[in-house]
Amino acid sequence: MAEEDQKNLHLPEVIVFGPPSVFKIYSLQFSSKFQMLKPWESPLPLPQYLAENAQNTRVALCSGICPLPATVIAQLPSLSLIVSTSAGMNHIDLTECRRRGIAIANGATVFSVDVADLAVGLLIDVSRKISAGNRYVRNGLWPEQGIYPLGFKLGGKKVGIVGLGSIGLEVAKRLEAFGCTLLYHSRKKNSSVSYIFHSNILELAAASDVLVICCPLTEQTRHMINRDVLLALGKEGLIVNIARGSVIDEKELVRCLQQREIAGAGLDVFENEPRVPTELFELDNVVLSPHFAVFTEESFRDSYELVTGNLEAFFSNKPLLSPATF
Amino acid sequence: MAEEDQKNLHLPEVIVFGPPSVFKIYSLQFSSKFQMLKPWESPLPLPQYLAENAQNTRVALCSGICPLPATVIAQLPSLSLIVSTSAGMNHIDLTECRRRGIAIANGATVFSVDVADLAVGLLIDVSRKISAGNRYVRNGLWPEQGIYPLGFKLGGKKVGIVGLGSIGLEVAKRLEAFGCTLLYHSRKKNSSVSYIFHSNILELAAASDVLVICCPLTEQTRHMINRDVLLALGKEGLIVNIARGSVIDEKELVRCLQQREIAGAGLDVFENEPRVPTELFELDNVVLSPHFAVFTEESFRDSYELVTGNLEAFFSNKPLLSPATF
Repeated sequence: MAEEDQKNLHLPEVIVFGPPSVFKIYSLQFSSKFQMLKPWESPLPLPQYLAENAQNTRVALCSGICPLPATVIAQLPSLSLIVSTSAGMNHIDLTECRRRGIAIANGATVFSVDVADLAVGLLIDVSRKISAGNRYVRNGLWPEQGIYPLGFKLGGKKVGIVGLGSIGLEVAKRLEAFGCTLLYHSRKKNSSVSYIFHSNILELAAASDVLVICCPLTEQTRHMINRDVLLALGKEGLIVNIARGSVIDEKELVRCLQQREIAGAGLDVFENEPRVPTELFELDNVVLSPHFAVFTEESFRDSYELVTGNLEAFFSNKPLLSPATF
Repeated sequence: MAEEDQKNLHLPEVIVFGPPSVFKIYSLQFSSKFQMLKPWESPLPLPQYLAENAQNTRVALCSGICPLPATVIAQLPSLSLIVSTSAGMNHIDLTECRRRGIAIANGATVFSVDVADLAVGLLIDVSRKISAGNRYVRNGLWPEQGIYPLGFKLGGKKVGIVGLGSIGLEVAKRLEAFGCTLLYHSRKKNSSVSYIFHSNILELAAASDVLVICCPLTEQTRHMINRDVLLALGKEGLIVNIARGSVIDEKELVRCLQQREIAGAGLDVFENEPRVPTELFELDNVVLSPHFAVFTEESFRDSYELVTGNLEAFFSNKPLLSPATF
């Protein structure tokens, strides 16, 4: 056990899964306030580690990409709270949490604007070929080959937002400034916006030049963007995904991109991260980023403050800062 | 002479320099309306070509990157109009045009929104490391190396617009939607906007987190962004240039980027295009594009229509659609 951890034995215990990126960055700050249990530093298999160290631990901290299935939750008999750094909760077994009465505090909207910024950045990049142009210049092709293929204008384009939550609304606000026409699909119509609502995802795709995927991953949204939706989006259509990889049927997406059945994609998320289908590496009409839509210094500071705020509230019997309803 | 050109001998003559990209794309359409003289297709040196073919030619068409110096203008004794596809006119000898009473029709604001879109795209790309992240994923580094370095949030950043013309205003409008604070430097204060005016470029740089260069290239703006301005922008500062390469002292920019005296740059333009300083190819904190800020299908169609509109107006003695004042 590290010296810093020894000193903190009197502090309240938090078991960390993943660990979340914010934990890696603010490790010292977290460890000065809580006794952080780090199973990945132990040679023990996880079940044995939990059995020996975490039977009285009341709080777990996890990221949005670290699964917390019922089998793991079952090994934490004292668990009362899960703090997730993400807004999405698809990685946690919510049925088991409901059954046990375990509360969840999530990342709320801390990351929404950064995710929206990246979504717009990916869309401009794909439509205006920025990453491809950057490659062209760096490979020394400009003097040899001259004029670069034309991109697509953003203004006047119909952009279909899939999931008009806090991220989708931020994306829409930005794209309005570019002169785009906004459409959306969501569980229900939002009466506070004037964007065109489509209750049917196929109809939204057919009416849109671009789809931006901003919805949570649930059983209802898994593979919602299937081959039919992609074909409805069409040969000139672009797709941006900053939600979760599995909202799109990735095999079909790869096939549509390879066969130019859609025009391009900007993808921050994938079905089997960090594995990315290598067929995509060959394609000039896609921009790939390593699930880093939330990766700004400013957001991580905000995330650190929200996580510690939730932990401090819990340990002092005050209301959570960002309690999730599920 | 090609068959299509033979048929068009009765059409009004236009001498083409460059040629502009829009001419390459709409070559057939242009040639159906005008007799387009194409010196680059002739084996003759330009002076001889002009002496033999263009002594009665009244109109020249050029792009923004093809110089039209006094020596060339002098070889066109009948020249009355220059139609430039660009908004900028730094490539034309304006003194000679004034002396001869030659009118200029320029590209007006056809390309402004596309240029503004690319400026914002480059800024998001640099601050959120999109092209660099794309390279990381395509090089297969994500599974090996995991978490990618953090970027910078756009919201709350102070963005200094250098040159608040039609492009600068479009950039500002977009960045407002991202929650940026707008500042600007321009020849004079614009009383119709609430952005913070700085009459001094050094003061603007010192007050800004980001500079976006949107001004025309003139004798006053050449190397306006010098080492002092870059150092005033500072170690955390980003710069985007979609104006002309020579507005920045490129050698100093390269040095500041190499020595991390500024944090990064998004560059669509360079001092000696298509040559780009190869030192930049080594740097992860720059995004380079091949002067393609205007390269969208939609803008080229608009540009084609504006150019033909100006030519038709001239040949039928009507007012030009986009007469330039200079």
